[in-house]
Amino acid sequence: MTVEISDHFSRILSAPVYAHLGTVRPNGEVQMNPMWFEFDPEAQTIRFTHTTTRAKFRNLQANPRMTLSMTDPENPFKYVEVRGRLADVVPDPEGAMYVRLGQRYGNPDEQAPDDSADRVVLVMQIEKVNGR
Amino acid sequence: MTVEISDHFSRILSAPVYAHLGTVRPNGEVQMNPMWFEFDPEAQTIRFTHTTTRAKFRNLQANPRMTLSMTDPENPFKYVEVRGRLADVVPDPEGAMYVRLGQRYGNPDEQAPDDSADRVVLVMQIEKVNGR
Repeated sequence: MTVEISDHFSRILSAPVYAHLGTVRPNGEVQMNPMWFEFDPEAQTIRFTHTTTRAKFRNLQANPRMTLSMTDPENPFKYVEVRGRLADVVPDPEGAMYVRLGQRYGNPDEQAPDDSADRVVLVMQIEKVNGR
Repeated sequence: MTVEISDHFSRILSAPVYAHLGTVRPNGEVQMNPMWFEFDPEAQTIRFTHTTTRAKFRNLQANPRMTLSMTDPENPFKYVEVRGRLADVVPDPEGAMYVRLGQRYGNPDEQAPDDSADRVVLVMQIEKVNGR
């Protein structure tokens, strides 16, 4: 199913801003933190670099729902909220996605991180886009 | 119970940055959007202006858990996550909290909004503070 994503929301999703990612902990609390990400408008996915050793990864194994919120860097009264779920986990033992995102977020010399062996790419399939 | 909040996290929470607030929808999805807020270090609360007519308010009636995430305006690698729950809802029919927050966020001429009659102050009691 294709999701309607307006030009306005696509523009916000294409900016290298930190997105706040929410997942649900086993006890029902929301876990949130800022994340680097990459939006693929063709596949309607959002990709993140992450590791298999952290709480968020365990949250997503139990409950694949993911919600993302970010403000428009050009207008703080505008924002986009994206809801979806984890569709794929791709091993990334060289940390290539970390390097690519680090470059996208402003560091042309980004190096593979120390925890590359545990690195994965989280692929979120977009199901709904809201905001203003 | 008093929550330990470091000077570092208190400083981030005192900046007039947009915080992303996560609540849980009745279907278990996370709803998120950027919010103005005011941190009270003595009471260990965070206050928001909101209305009684929106989805987030209904979410909180069913599930009072709230999580907040924001990046440090002085260092994008630093952030704070605050978990807590809705402790009080205070009617604000003049929109006074909206005006105060609008001023705090940079508009000295902020006016009461058109939906003032439905305005309330959401009071979140802080239960846990994380981040880096």
